[in-house]
Parts: sequence; structure tokens; C-alpha cells
Amino acid sequence: MATTPSTSPRRLLPLSLGLFQAALLLFFTLFVTYDEPSVQAEDANAVANQLYSIFPFFQDIQVMLVVGLGLLLTFLPRYGLSVLTHNFLLLNFSTQWALLLQGLLHHFHHGQVHLGLHNILTAEFAAVTVLISTGAIVGRTSPCQLLVMATCEVPIYLASEWAITTYLGVLDVGGTITIHVFSCYFGLGVSKALFRAAQQPVHPKETPTPRSDLMSLVGTLILWVFWPSFVAVLCQPGGAQHRAILNTLLAMSASAVTTVVTSSLMERDGKLSPGHLQNGSLAGGVAIGAVADMAVAPVAALALGSLSAMSCLLGFRFLTPLLVRKLSLQDQCGIHNLHGLPGILGAAASAVAILVVPDGTAGYHFSPTGGNATEEVAMGWFGGRGAGWQALCQAVGLVVAGGGSLLAGLLTGAALRLPCLALPPQRLCFDDSMYFKVQDEAESTGMGGTIEEGALAMKEQV
Amino acid sequence: MATTPSTSPRRLLPLSLGLFQAALLLFFTLFVTYDEPSVQAEDANAVANQLYSIFPFFQDIQVMLVVGLGLLLTFLPRYGLSVLTHNFLLLNFSTQWALLLQGLLHHFHHGQVHLGLHNILTAEFAAVTVLISTGAIVGRTSPCQLLVMATCEVPIYLASEWAITTYLGVLDVGGTITIHVFSCYFGLGVSKALFRAAQQPVHPKETPTPRSDLMSLVGTLILWVFWPSFVAVLCQPGGAQHRAILNTLLAMSASAVTTVVTSSLMERDGKLSPGHLQNGSLAGGVAIGAVADMAVAPVAALALGSLSAMSCLLGFRFLTPLLVRKLSLQDQCGIHNLHGLPGILGAAASAVAILVVPDGTAGYHFSPTGGNATEEVAMGWFGGRGAGWQALCQAVGLVVAGGGSLLAGLLTGAALRLPCLALPPQRLCFDDSMYFKVQDEAESTGMGGTIEEGALAMKEQV
Amino acid sequence: MATTPSTSPRRLLPLSLGLFQAALLLFFTLFVTYDEPSVQAEDANAVANQLYSIFPFFQDIQVMLVVGLGLLLTFLPRYGLSVLTHNFLLLNFSTQWALLLQGLLHHFHHGQVHLGLHNILTAEFAAVTVLISTGAIVGRTSPCQLLVMATCEVPIYLASEWAITTYLGVLDVGGTITIHVFSCYFGLGVSKALFRAAQQPVHPKETPTPRSDLMSLVGTLILWVFWPSFVAVLCQPGGAQHRAILNTLLAMSASAVTTVVTSSLMERDGKLSPGHLQNGSLAGGVAIGAVADMAVAPVAALALGSLSAMSCLLGFRFLTPLLVRKLSLQDQCGIHNLHGLPGILGAAASAVAILVVPDGTAGYHFSPTGGNATEEVAMGWFGGRGAGWQALCQAVGLVVAGGGSLLAGLLTGAALRLPCLALPPQRLCFDDSMYFKVQDEAESTGMGGTIEEGALAMKEQV
Repeated sequence: MATTPSTSPRRLLPLSLGLFQAALLLFFTLFVTYDEPSVQAEDANAVANQLYSIFPFFQDIQVMLVVGLGLLLTFLPRYGLSVLTHNFLLLNFSTQWALLLQGLLHHFHHGQVHLGLHNILTAEFAAVTVLISTGAIVGRTSPCQLLVMATCEVPIYLASEWAITTYLGVLDVGGTITIHVFSCYFGLGVSKALFRAAQQPVHPKETPTPRSDLMSLVGTLILWVFWPSFVAVLCQPGGAQHRAILNTLLAMSASAVTTVVTSSLMERDGKLSPGHLQNGSLAGGVAIGAVADMAVAPVAALALGSLSAMSCLLGFRFLTPLLVRKLSLQDQCGIHNLHGLPGILGAAASAVAILVVPDGTAGYHFSPTGGNATEEVAMGWFGGRGAGWQALCQAVGLVVAGGGSLLAGLLTGAALRLPCLALPPQRLCFDDSMYFKVQDEAESTGMGGTIEEGALAMKEQV
Repeated sequence: MATTPSTSPRRLLPLSLGLFQAALLLFFTLFVTYDEPSVQAEDANAVANQLYSIFPFFQDIQVMLVVGLGLLLTFLPRYGLSVLTHNFLLLNFSTQWALLLQGLLHHFHHGQVHLGLHNILTAEFAAVTVLISTGAIVGRTSPCQLLVMATCEVPIYLASEWAITTYLGVLDVGGTITIHVFSCYFGLGVSKALFRAAQQPVHPKETPTPRSDLMSLVGTLILWVFWPSFVAVLCQPGGAQHRAILNTLLAMSASAVTTVVTSSLMERDGKLSPGHLQNGSLAGGVAIGAVADMAVAPVAALALGSLSAMSCLLGFRFLTPLLVRKLSLQDQCGIHNLHGLPGILGAAASAVAILVVPDGTAGYHFSPTGGNATEEVAMGWFGGRGAGWQALCQAVGLVVAGGGSLLAGLLTGAALRLPCLALPPQRLCFDDSMYFKVQDEAESTGMGGTIEEGALAMKEQV
Repeated sequence: MATTPSTSPRRLLPLSLGLFQAALLLFFTLFVTYDEPSVQAEDANAVANQLYSIFPFFQDIQVMLVVGLGLLLTFLPRYGLSVLTHNFLLLNFSTQWALLLQGLLHHFHHGQVHLGLHNILTAEFAAVTVLISTGAIVGRTSPCQLLVMATCEVPIYLASEWAITTYLGVLDVGGTITIHVFSCYFGLGVSKALFRAAQQPVHPKETPTPRSDLMSLVGTLILWVFWPSFVAVLCQPGGAQHRAILNTLLAMSASAVTTVVTSSLMERDGKLSPGHLQNGSLAGGVAIGAVADMAVAPVAALALGSLSAMSCLLGFRFLTPLLVRKLSLQDQCGIHNLHGLPGILGAAASAVAILVVPDGTAGYHFSPTGGNATEEVAMGWFGGRGAGWQALCQAVGLVVAGGGSLLAGLLTGAALRLPCLALPPQRLCFDDSMYFKVQDEAESTGMGGTIEEGALAMKEQV
């Protein structure tokens, strides 16, 4: 069994998490209630219909984040338990943390915070940024570091989201700019500041096996299937939501086919790379978010899906090695290729769409930080703005999301170097035995063979 | 290939199952129809809306039981095919058996039984108790024994559920008492009577591998995601259902974080145990069922989720070894920790909530045995009872569910010792080759290596 | 790393796929728009409700096709990445191709094609036929060949579907005849013409391992859970849709239990065959499609489910070996047993139901090729036909679906023998390394062991 560097940082994680849980309980005790139970029958019907119109989308998104994203990260063959668990823990911690912050910040003037499914959903969007940023540094960091990163990233996201959608009025229903671009550059900033100039050598345990690639591909497919729910959940019900679903379906279908074409053309012998499929198939979903509910032609969704898949794969092929060589930038899962490049493409597409699409009956503010979505519908076309001004806002929003998060990420990454946070030593990276009581021996002899040795270590259930 | 003890009990399973299918066909032929097709357009709309309000919940529950629970049990590394298949078979058999019994018992006075999605759902709840109880004895029992257990457990559950919710008027919308506590003590009773004082030695094949733990964790995550649908499906549409979903989400989120904290604190080196995660994360869902739709404050759901996860993990750490030592009680999956302790906690919480919550606009009878849910809404506050009396009823319900099922389980377990039911010999436990035509050789040499040997055994599909 | 026969056919796949994507973009640019955004509030509500009534079904079907069917095919232990990817690629390509053809054929007279979720759904049904037919030849064919097959099969399906449901007026809401029977005999025709008299020897890599059987069984369970959505999605909302869901649930439950009974009785030692479970459990869903929304008694659904599971397993036991011996017919996944025999049974059941069921208030035309489903409701009972005439039509429809597709499949299979399409050599069949950049060495030494060697090959993400 692997020895561990020291026990004191190992106590840090549960103790600080426990303290946070206590603070959350206190906050909920003081400030949070549900809506008053409605007594009239017609009210009950309205509440029920509202629930049925959001709950299936919500469940789809939960499957994406908990199962799909977790499995996608299991491409690391000996680190599956850890990635699933860290992903699950970060999702829950970040959602609770965002709920607490949202409650304090946005709803405080109401006296009591009235909790609803909508609040939990928007808190979960804040957690998504943490899960994406983690992709840059997964495997070489401790859960303590990831929790500190989450603690920093959630409030910065909430501020950035407010600046971009409320202050600047950027249109971004699917979170292309506010979620994907933001979290990508935040994660890269963290990675740069954390690992500095030290180029990380290829670790023997980070090479996927066919079996871990298979599990990861299943995760991709789950994400691919449910992505339309993620983009459309906060759309205005009716035509805009229907259009958002269709645009996402078209973009993702084009991404899937283009990924196979591009990956096959990029290799001398025409073979596919599992990593390309795992990422490229999803690029269309990232890019379509900013234009999904606009009245663009269906061909725009197809084209955007194809282009984003291409940019993702070209990024893996040319940009990632370049960033490693020139900037010593570590990007473990290639989040710059899946979230950064398609996100920029999507933001650019939204600016073009605003300039080109003749009339703007569709175009709503994306406001994941709470509030009643219907209140925040842009009054008229871009809230009275001209198309040129709105397109400029989209560009400014992109710069704010990317630049601001990069800066914040660099600062956060520097904080993660604190010695008490226990950066794991190189030889213990990418290994479940660092964080889990598992049987090394049983594993290394394969599932068959002398599995009897495994019986020496007894499980609690027994 | 493993030799099998005798062939006659192997014929018993298909023959008795076949007979049951014939009896089911006869019963359906004589007594069961669908509702008359509605002819008016407004009726069709109402039927459609009713369907859309239950069907997504129903599908979520199906995923939980068939895929999630099945995968959760695959922590036994060489027994995956068997647990998935036995879980699937027991679910279908028990649902059919409950449908038949419900039809005979509850609906007989209508002449014809009018089958609807609601009936199938409530029959499936009866099947859930069987699947949970199986957790105590999985791996050391034959499918014949499991079917006999299901045959006994379903009618006892229906009687117990009637006594608790209809006769005593216990409030338990999510089945905390009627399903979780009941099935836990039934399963423990079966285990005690079946294995008696013989303490089962640790079997080499019951130790999980990292890979089987990973599959099992995926099952947990699937259960975690869809649990709100399980709790809320039978709630009164409107505010109560919305609240049930929110309470369940909060409880499960708190469970997830608390599980990591507690598991990490319980080990000297701060490592997590996969078994803790697989069970503790779900404890909040078990406990919240009895209070989910009550007008409790959100903080109560958080606190209950945290406490139940703690009790679950403390159970694994201290109670299970104690039960093994003192009572020679075998509890393979630790159902007492996941269903028993959190269930008792949830029942206690419901009694407290009834005493504390000022007004009781929410609180509906849970009646999974059929009937129109809207008819059975408690008239006024606890059907006119005082809060003290209702709280007492919750306690009595808990005792009936736990005590009655323990007794019934002991009797059932004694019946499972009948020699014709073929308790598998120790050396063939936890092994798929006992029940499946699989290639031992191909497996024991790993997936690679001399897989060619596997070609000796030919598959039907070829 | 395996050598590949030649590089030019490897370029054929991406180039032709790329050309197709360009053609699709052109077609969408010229002809396809969304519905005009609705401006009135009442319209928005109607659009929203229509969306909520179809979208959960649609998502269920996406999970079935992308995740469930993909996993089902991973019973080939070293070919998992390939089957998942080919399944995913074929689904997307065929859906796009069907959208294009449907647009050209059906909607052209409207000038502009108005794209909606309904069109994508019906295009996906065309893609399902391709995925099923692939089952006959999977593992021994190149992706190029599969794409050529898809290119031929989609238009033939659209023509066949038009002939059967629109011209003949066959009732087949769940696609038993139009999808399952059609795709089965098409696939068998392709297989016969492609492999001719050369009986394929058993390949060492096509024998499932317990682990690949487990993954495949998980795929089956996912398909089993969501099958009711597949059958009911195009039903008339209201009673007919409710009935279709219930009938499918009953048929699949009976199939599951009967499969265990039959598989256990068919073997001397009473052991189950994983292949039987993976297929037999789903047979009821195939057979029920043609009668699902008819006003049959519930017992008919149970009986049909049992009979179809039996016929499926008897087919595996007796018919498949016979077809191999007498006709040298290769049927890799046994699609004749899962789709052919139960499909014929279902078609026969629909004819009997039409003759026996007293009055026909339910019975709607299945029209997956587009158009507004509500317009095509059969006016009155079978559009004014007598029951005898309608029953005859069902039989003729079956013959057209089976005979026509067999002929078309034979022609398509002959085309697949073109040398440029690169039939893979025998020794490279059933192996991911033929199409993927994977680490053979890491795999063959198991996940543990000298995994360090795998590090020689570096992944793009690094």
C-alpha cells in the first residue's frame, strides 16, 4: 500500500468541509425557507405545471454532471474511483457554496430566501464551472486543493456572470461565454500558477487503456445525449426553447460526424483517436450555447457544430503541444480544446448572428444567479439597443470572461501552492490508492489469478 | 467449469416460475382490463396530462431499480452477471406477483381490475422491498431461495403497508418506514434464520476490486441522481411535490458531503472507503422519505441528510462488526446501515416534525397499494387528529414495520433452509460460473493473454 | 500495432463523409428553416406544452440508441470502442441522410422545409433500421461498408415505410413491421450477399468474456427500461398512448421472466446463457409494437411477451445453427432471433387482434416519415375498412417489409463487395486496433502489470 506524505493535511479536508457544513446549516436555519404552501387549487395546478416543465430538464442535467462527466474523466485507468468521487464531491460542495453566496448576495433584501428548484439549478451552473476547470489539473492535485479552488471560483463566477449578463446584457442562454470560456481560462490560469515553469513529465499511469477509454466514451455519449437539456433549460418556454433544443441537436450531430472525419484525416493511417471522439463530439454543444435560442437558420447550427469540432481537434493536434512547449502549460483533459476554442467560436457566432439575423424576436438574458427568468426577458430587441452595439457587447463579454478568469485563476493557482494543501508527489499521482482503501495486489494481478490475496484486506460490508 | 450440486433443484426454478407465469396469464384473462378508451377530446387531454405528470418519474424509478441498484451490487467482482440478473428477475417477478395480489385483494369488489400506470408503480414499490432485503443474503443464496423469499415478502409487505398507512394513518410519502425499515428487518430476519449461528467466513471472491468498486459507485451515482423522483412520485401535485423534490435534493447533497467528511475522519490515514461512499451518499434519501412533503424548514432536510450519512457510516464501522460477533448476523451489503438506521432516524424525524411544525397544510397518506391518490388525501390536519397522537402513530408504525418484518423474516428464512432450495456450497458462492455459462479460463487469464482458449466455448449468437 | 491493408480506402471514409456534410450544409442553406417564431402568448404556451409532451420520450429514445444499443454490442470484448463509435457515427449519419431525403421527398411542395423535433424523431427511426441491420455483420466489416449500407438502406426504408403505412394502411405504431422486420431481413440479405457461401470460422476474439457480457447486459437493461418510450412516442396522446405504455411494460416484464425460464430449461445443467438474457428480455418490446395502442386485453400483451421471448431463444438454439449449416448465413448478433421472429409474431398478433377486438376506437397510422401525426389519424375504424380486409393488409405489409428488404439487402450486400470498400482481413476482425490508436501492449498485459510500457504511446490530451 502506498505510503502517504503526512497526515495533517489529510485532516484538513474533513475538518474544513465539516466546518462548511455547519456554516451552511446555520445560514439555512437563519435565512432560508420554502415558498409558502399554496392553498388554492388553481395555484397548485400552476405550481405542478411549472415543476413538470423544468424537472425533466433538471434530471437530465444531474445525469450529465454526476454520471456523464464523472465517467468521461475515467480515461485515467487507475484513477477512476478518485475522479468519480472528486467530481461528485466538488459538485455538491460548489452547489451548496453557490446557494449560500447567492442567498447572501441576491436575495438578502427579501429578508427570507425562498428556495426553489430554479435556485438549485442556477447554483449548479456555478458548480459546473468548477468541474470544468478541474479538468486542467486533475490527477496531479489533492482534493484539498480542488476544494480551495472551488471556494475561490464560485464567487468569482457569480461576479463574472453578473457583469456579463446583467451589466453588459450579453446574450448567452446556454452558458457558452459565462460558463465554458470562463471556466476554461480560470482552469488554465490555476494550472499555470500551480505548476509554473516545471513541465510535467508524462506519467505512466495517465495513459488510457482501451477499457478506460471505453468507460470514458460512455461518459461522452451520456453528455452528448443530454446536452440539449443543459442548453435549453433556462430558455423562455415556447418557440425559443424548441429552437434551442433543435439547434443543439443539429450542432451536436454535425460535431459527431465532423469529429470522425477530422480525426481520421489527421492521422497517417486513418485511425481514430479515442481522445478526439471523447472531446470533439461535444464541441458543438459548447459553441451553440450563445446562439441556441436566436432566430438563426438551422444551417448555422450545423456549420457551427462542424467548425467547433474541427477547432477542437486541431487544438489537440497543434495548439496543446505548442502550449506545453512554449508556455509549459499543463492541460490534463484538454479543456482549452473542448471549452476554450469552441467557446470563443460560439461567442463570435453570436455576434455575427446578431448583426445578420433580420429581426430579433428571440434573445433572452441568461441569468443563472437566480431571480425570476421571465422578469429578465430583454424588453424588445436587445433591451432597445442597436444590433451593432449588442454585437460589441458580446465581444466585450468574451474578453471579460476570458481575461478576468485567467487573472483570477492565476491568483487562485498561486494560493494552491500553500504547503498545507499537499500537492501530491509525482509518483503518487493518477493513483486511486492515494485516496482510497483499495487492494493494490488484487488489481495488479488482474481480476483473475490470485485474487485470493485480496481477501487479506477486509471490507466493512462483510 | 464448476460442477453443480444436483440438477433437480435447477429444474425447480424454471418450472415454478413457468407455473407462476401461467397463473398470471389466467388471472389477467379473467379479471384484468384497461380503463375504457375515452372518447371525448377533453378526456383525452386530461388522460394525456395525467400521463405526462407521472411517466417521467416512473422512468426515473425504473432506471434506479434496473440499472442503478443492479450496478450497485456489482461490487462483488466475479458475481456481476448474477447480481444484475437476479435483481432484474426479482424485480419483474415481484412486480407481477404484487399486481396479482393487489388485484385479488384491493380491487376485487369492482368486479374488473382496471390496470393503469399507477397500479404498476405501486406494485413496483412492493418489489423494491424484495430487492433491498436481498442485499443481506446476496451471493450466498440460490435464485430459488430468493424467489421463495420474494413470494413470502410481497404479501407481508402489502399487509404491513395497509396496517401502517391505512389503519394507523402513518405519514410516509417516500416509504422510509413502509419500504426501507420494513425490508431491512425482513432481510436481516431471513439472514439470521437462514445462516443461524454459523458465522460465515470471509470469502475470497467477495472482496471488491477497484474496478468492481468503480462499477458499483456508478450505480450509486445513478441512484443518487434519480432518488428525488422515487420520493416525490406519489406526492400530491403542486407545492407538496415541489417541496418533496427540494427536500430530497438537499438531504442527498448533505449526505454526499458528510459521507466524505466522516469516512475520511474514521480512518487513521484519512483515506476513503469505497463502501462508505457507495452507501453513505444515499442515506439521506432513505431518511427524508417520511418528512419530504411536510412543511419543514429546508435546514431540517440538510440536517437529516447529514445525520443519516453519519449514522450509516458509524453503523459500518461499529455496529456491523458487533452484530457479526455477538449475533452471528450476516449482512452482506450492510442494508442495516443504509436502510435500517437512516430509516429509524427518518421515522423519528417525522414524529418530531409533526410536533414542531406549526400548521399542517402538507401531509398526505402514502398508499402504494393502489387506489386513487387524490381520494386518500388526509382530510385536514392528520385527518382530524392532534399532533401528539399523530406523532405516536409514527412511532407505532415504525415498531410495526420493524418488529413485524423481523418476525416474518425469521419465519421466511427458516423456510429457505428446505433442502430442495439448494443453498449453494461455500466454494461456489459469489461466482457467476454457478449460474451462467461463462468462460472461466478466458477470465482467469485476463482479457488479453491467451484469450484464444476462450474460443473453445462457442456462443449461441455465432 | 496491427498493420493495415492499405491507406487509400482509409481516406475514402473521411472524404466521402466530408462531402456528405458539405451537401447537407448546402441543402439546409437552400431549403430548411424553423417554424416562424410565434408571437402570441397563447401560441407560446401551446408550443411549450407540445414540446414537453414529446421531449422526455425523445430523450429516452436517444439514450436507448446511443448508450443502450452501443453497450449491448460491447459483448465483443476487444471491439468495444469500435462498436460504440460505429453505432454513434451510423446513427448521426443516417439521421442526417434521412432528414435530407425526407426534406427532398415529403416536404418539397411546401417550398421551405420547416424543421421540428418531430422530423428529427422520424429521421432517427430510419437510422434505427441501419443500427439493427448492422447487427448481422458487425465485427467483420469496415466502417466504409457500413456507411454504404446506411446510404442504401435509408431511402429503401423510407419507400418501404410509405408503402406499408401510407399506401397499405398497415397499423404499426411501434414499428414492429416497418422497423424491426424490415431491418432484420435487410441485414440478413446484406450478410448473405457479402459473405456468400463462405462459412465464417469462429473468431477467437468474438467470444465474450464475463466482463464484456456484463457491459452488454447493462446495455440490455437500459434498452429494456426505455423501450415503452420508443413504442409510445408517436401514439395519439391520451388513452391510446397510456395503453401503449402499459402494453409494452407488460410485454417486457413477461419477456424477462420467460427468458430466464426458457434459457434455464434449454440447458442440461440449468445454467443461463448471457446471450439469451441480452436478447430475450427485449423480444417482447419488438413484438408488441404493432398492437400496442389497440384496445386489446392486458393478457394479450403478457402472452405476446412470453411467446416472443420463447421464439427468440428457440431461434438462438435451433434456427441460427441451422441457417449457418444450410445457408451459410452469418448473423453475428442474432438479429433474426431478436427482430425477425418476434417481429413476425407481432405482425400476426396484430392481424388476430384486428379480427378479434370488438370495436376499434384505437388504431392509428404510424408515419415516421414526417407530416403531422394528428392529420393522419385513421378516420374511424381502419379508415372505413372492414376488419378482415385490414387483417389482410397487415399480412401483406409483413410480406412487403420482409421480402422487399431481403431483396434490397442482397443487392446492397453485393455492392459492399466492391474492393475499394476494404473488407477487413480475417485476423484483424473484432479488434479495436484496426480502427483506433490504442495500446495493444498495455491491454494484453492487463490493466495492472507493466502498464508503464503503455506510456511509450502518448495521448493527445497530455
